[in-house]
Amino acid sequence: MSTTMHRIEIPTIMEVDSNILKNAGAYIKRAGINRVVVLFGEGIRELFGQIILDSINSTASLTLLETYDYDDIKIESLMPMAFSISSNTEAVIGVGGGKVLDAAKYIAFLKNLPFISIPTSTSNDGFSSSGCSLIINGRRTSVHAVMPFGIIVDIAVIKNAPVKFIYSGLGDIVSKITAVFDWYYEEGNRAARVNDFAAMLAKKSVNSIVRMPYTQITEEFFLKEMVDSLTMSGIAMQIADNSAPASGSEHLISHALDKILEKPQLHGIQVGIATYLMSLVQQHRYKRIEKFLSDTGFFDYVQTLQLRAEDFERAIELAPEIKPNRYTYLHTEKNRAMAKELLRSDNILNKILK
Amino acid sequence: MSTTMHRIEIPTIMEVDSNILKNAGAYIKRAGINRVVVLFGEGIRELFGQIILDSINSTASLTLLETYDYDDIKIESLMPMAFSISSNTEAVIGVGGGKVLDAAKYIAFLKNLPFISIPTSTSNDGFSSSGCSLIINGRRTSVHAVMPFGIIVDIAVIKNAPVKFIYSGLGDIVSKITAVFDWYYEEGNRAARVNDFAAMLAKKSVNSIVRMPYTQITEEFFLKEMVDSLTMSGIAMQIADNSAPASGSEHLISHALDKILEKPQLHGIQVGIATYLMSLVQQHRYKRIEKFLSDTGFFDYVQTLQLRAEDFERAIELAPEIKPNRYTYLHTEKNRAMAKELLRSDNILNKILK
Amino acid sequence: MSTTMHRIEIPTIMEVDSNILKNAGAYIKRAGINRVVVLFGEGIRELFGQIILDSINSTASLTLLETYDYDDIKIESLMPMAFSISSNTEAVIGVGGGKVLDAAKYIAFLKNLPFISIPTSTSNDGFSSSGCSLIINGRRTSVHAVMPFGIIVDIAVIKNAPVKFIYSGLGDIVSKITAVFDWYYEEGNRAARVNDFAAMLAKKSVNSIVRMPYTQITEEFFLKEMVDSLTMSGIAMQIADNSAPASGSEHLISHALDKILEKPQLHGIQVGIATYLMSLVQQHRYKRIEKFLSDTGFFDYVQTLQLRAEDFERAIELAPEIKPNRYTYLHTEKNRAMAKELLRSDNILNKILK
Amino acid sequence: MSTTMHRIEIPTIMEVDSNILKNAGAYIKRAGINRVVVLFGEGIRELFGQIILDSINSTASLTLLETYDYDDIKIESLMPMAFSISSNTEAVIGVGGGKVLDAAKYIAFLKNLPFISIPTSTSNDGFSSSGCSLIINGRRTSVHAVMPFGIIVDIAVIKNAPVKFIYSGLGDIVSKITAVFDWYYEEGNRAARVNDFAAMLAKKSVNSIVRMPYTQITEEFFLKEMVDSLTMSGIAMQIADNSAPASGSEHLISHALDKILEKPQLHGIQVGIATYLMSLVQQHRYKRIEKFLSDTGFFDYVQTLQLRAEDFERAIELAPEIKPNRYTYLHTEKNRAMAKELLRSDNILNKILK
Repeated sequence: MSTTMHRIEIPTIMEVDSNILKNAGAYIKRAGINRVVVLFGEGIRELFGQIILDSINSTASLTLLETYDYDDIKIESLMPMAFSISSNTEAVIGVGGGKVLDAAKYIAFLKNLPFISIPTSTSNDGFSSSGCSLIINGRRTSVHAVMPFGIIVDIAVIKNAPVKFIYSGLGDIVSKITAVFDWYYEEGNRAARVNDFAAMLAKKSVNSIVRMPYTQITEEFFLKEMVDSLTMSGIAMQIADNSAPASGSEHLISHALDKILEKPQLHGIQVGIATYLMSLVQQHRYKRIEKFLSDTGFFDYVQTLQLRAEDFERAIELAPEIKPNRYTYLHTEKNRAMAKELLRSDNILNKILK
Repeated sequence: MSTTMHRIEIPTIMEVDSNILKNAGAYIKRAGINRVVVLFGEGIRELFGQIILDSINSTASLTLLETYDYDDIKIESLMPMAFSISSNTEAVIGVGGGKVLDAAKYIAFLKNLPFISIPTSTSNDGFSSSGCSLIINGRRTSVHAVMPFGIIVDIAVIKNAPVKFIYSGLGDIVSKITAVFDWYYEEGNRAARVNDFAAMLAKKSVNSIVRMPYTQITEEFFLKEMVDSLTMSGIAMQIADNSAPASGSEHLISHALDKILEKPQLHGIQVGIATYLMSLVQQHRYKRIEKFLSDTGFFDYVQTLQLRAEDFERAIELAPEIKPNRYTYLHTEKNRAMAKELLRSDNILNKILK
Repeated sequence: MSTTMHRIEIPTIMEVDSNILKNAGAYIKRAGINRVVVLFGEGIRELFGQIILDSINSTASLTLLETYDYDDIKIESLMPMAFSISSNTEAVIGVGGGKVLDAAKYIAFLKNLPFISIPTSTSNDGFSSSGCSLIINGRRTSVHAVMPFGIIVDIAVIKNAPVKFIYSGLGDIVSKITAVFDWYYEEGNRAARVNDFAAMLAKKSVNSIVRMPYTQITEEFFLKEMVDSLTMSGIAMQIADNSAPASGSEHLISHALDKILEKPQLHGIQVGIATYLMSLVQQHRYKRIEKFLSDTGFFDYVQTLQLRAEDFERAIELAPEIKPNRYTYLHTEKNRAMAKELLRSDNILNKILK
Repeated sequence: MSTTMHRIEIPTIMEVDSNILKNAGAYIKRAGINRVVVLFGEGIRELFGQIILDSINSTASLTLLETYDYDDIKIESLMPMAFSISSNTEAVIGVGGGKVLDAAKYIAFLKNLPFISIPTSTSNDGFSSSGCSLIINGRRTSVHAVMPFGIIVDIAVIKNAPVKFIYSGLGDIVSKITAVFDWYYEEGNRAARVNDFAAMLAKKSVNSIVRMPYTQITEEFFLKEMVDSLTMSGIAMQIADNSAPASGSEHLISHALDKILEKPQLHGIQVGIATYLMSLVQQHRYKRIEKFLSDTGFFDYVQTLQLRAEDFERAIELAPEIKPNRYTYLHTEKNRAMAKELLRSDNILNKILK
């Protein structure tokens, strides 16, 4: 029929469970891949190189072509790197944190190869999305790359990552609430078209975890839910074909902070704080967000960071220019004023920011 | 690249909100459709015909070709019907309950046309799935049809449907817990391959609602979550390309009851009871399921139906033959025995069944 | 990107060569299919049953579930047939002429299974297209089914089919010239949008053969070109998502003759004659068509059939009503008149028709 | 069904005709694009800038964002260029010869935008393929980019391009004969799997033109056939997901010449000569190729270029290393020896090479 369904692409390999790093080779081979190149983030080879390389080498007719320790996300370095890897590579595997995953993802994109994402910490949804943060002309820039062909997350590994990465992941998840609300606001103002399935996924991903009972955030059942939610968030962007379902005004504040601060905090930490702030501006589900960020200990952790309210104030001013083509709550003067006012008047913000 | 991503199809129109029936024409036209045929379920035209037909007729360059009142799901009736509708039809719209949606869905399938699903009650996930229950050679048979091109659910309409439909919808949702567990059990026994994204969607769809706070089940916020969950469940089956993520041993019991009983209950009612039973057999999240079905009033409603334990006993026996190619918990003698034993020993089952 | 490429589907198995029937099982297994059902046309099992069934049975882990001798294209017979085949069938194979291929194709469509097309004669492009000619309510009706998942044509088999099937195939191929010209005419009259790639394929398919040197039409090199051309014609329809690239006014005349005549001739025979006639009306490439149909012996064969000009005259009158939504050359009074006049005045038509 | 059809992507816009440059804007807008950036090759703006920019500017709600004169295919230049174009660009248009098309194609790829290809000369099939020839680390390198979303070829423009471009185009087309034969040879040696539809397209594309009658190669009917053939060749590679259907041993010789020669000739010129040579080695359709290259005047033109047989001899030696993973006729010592011998013994090669 000429009126066709909306067709979307999702990862072929999606494995999220405890102690599964040792199965990586089997998952990859089962998906039809025969020859791989592996990139490890800084210090990652020492921690997980053995188990992953053993898993690949012990898998029948799966060949390890090359391995690298690579963390460089400058595009002028990635380019020659991409065109220097073995010409018969069938997939590029990235193992580690955000930088090596972005590097491997972009190399796979340039070579038109499948990218397999093996995050050792999940501080944001980058491990499951097609987006990529590179340094272009000296500036951090978000560019399109490719959706992971495979996602392999070992919960036991995530559990043992520094707790700040877990807080960052939680901050990134809760942001779906304000992001989706911004998206509907944009549609209401004829500045965007909401993709209902993407919005539904984003909402389900956050609702299932913020409403979840748990004793401590490092219990595997809870971490699995977190990783599943971040994965769905990445896929929601893929379905929408843009970042709107996962990134609204709260992300603009974080992007602005990245420009302002000497040493920005983890993406999800900044986003989490901004999410609480924006939920007050939107007057939407702020109680739920406050409860979640309090109960999980997110706010207590933030308080130790000594962040300055004045930096957030400048970030709020800068926010709209970050994405001039969008129309979030922060794209109106009135809401920016309200946001800045809340930095002073809200008790929690007063407590966690200097 | 030769190793391609997993490509899936999702509805182009997906609108779930209150008082949106009046926008149906606009949604359909916006999706590029110009000429439609509408099928109403029994008695539905009186209730919603006016508002829907007005919406279509008042939409510029959207033409209403024909309307029918049609509830017949016998394939020998559907066939000539399908080939008698106007040859320049661009989409088939079904409005009402399960039967008319199945009829319209199958007509659309035979004519290779988009199907637009407008349920007036959501007692199961049929409104959002590609499956179809027809009468073939005198027997209810599940056949493949086509994924809805559009899904339009007016929450205000769902709210006013008889409460039994809501209970049935809730019963169908909670069943994802036992269904997904059966699916992993099958994979563990090498009888199936789990599609991880489909399983993730099914789990998120049920988790977001069973963990949700609400004052009464007829409040719109709660009903929207229920409809979203049923929609995701339908899409999860589409992604898995089979019904496993949404239908396990608990569904087999319900299918068996359909054969046994003179007057079977609503699909979701039977499924909900069987889900509680199977969660005890699986020893998996039965407390959560018990709490949800108790708090929502599902069990109290079931008690009024005077269902007989002995019918469930026979259904448990019949279950494996319903889908001989699958391998759920009920496909082993030991578990069937345990299930039958629980019919006698479990307090809740004793209370709600005769 | 939101502006997506035009995505089309083509057969996964496409094998056209001499003496390859014996490889059928290997081709099918290589495409990932494990369990098949085979339908043979009338009298086909005697001729080719052994070699095909041996090929399947001798292929490791490829299972033959059921075989049928089946030629019934009445939809009321196909329906129960479709739902009675083994529930674990993975593909439906049709072996023989037009009827069994249409039957197997429709059964595959109803069961959502891959269809594998093994024509033993190629009198038209049905073996490679998604269309299907069934008897519905007693009348031959063209309905949508499914594109073949596999096409296996043994040239040695085609070579030994009665020569009338070859003439019919040639008549169907040459018709792409007038069909595509009608399509552009329709676009010029704002009654259609030409798909340029589909038109290009249709033109290349006919041009490569009408310009080809050969000594006799039964030589394998020539027959392979013919089968390739018919295959491309079927795929061109798939790409256009309608039959326009392969079927114009000349096909309408043939469809009309099917209604008029007690015993219609082979589709491609009627189409070939009508193509020559319409090329004169269109004043487009009629010399090339005349040369091809003369040199191949098509006209000489037709002369032996004793067809009556008056039947063609009535068919010309009936033509436009066959597809009222189209706008071919025959949809204007003036051209119908010219066509009828040519039946009397053209020397070749006078010679081959009574 | 789990066994899915082979899905391929083809251009949405495909327009090949005379005097259609003035419709470019309309074609682009009709495909749903609103904002474009245009790159002109060196000297192209003077020739065709006016007509194309007028066409865009005069199209309602189609906005011209930026124009560039750009011919630089060094990747280190393309990178910053790509990330400097307007962020709300919806499509990148390239107008001119091979270099600007490659540049625009790669920029579109990096930005995940549709690429629209408007060649002003068609000396090879680059204007219709996803491949791209860039300078990486100082060396010409073939890299993957993106299939054109649109192809617009004005035959009147092609007709007036220097005749050497037409000869080059013809040389590139005729090479499909040896390329496809190499591909089947590779399959026979278990070094590749032939995609039958891609092979069929490649063969039809060349057969339809080499068998075509014409009075002179600059007549539009002939040029349209040539451009259609080159377009189909580009799409055949897309379908095969590699260059095999369009590029075999004859292309390896040309790539080798590019390394050896100070000033290589046009790609298609070198390829055409090598195709004649390899057809003799393959002993496959060499008479047809000789006739085509003689009748069109290709050989006479080549004779004026004073190419040296010894360069071809060295190229033959180098050929296999160009693509070590392939297995063409030139990948065996015996055939390389035969090829070199033919450089001395064949009359035509003796005549056209020094």
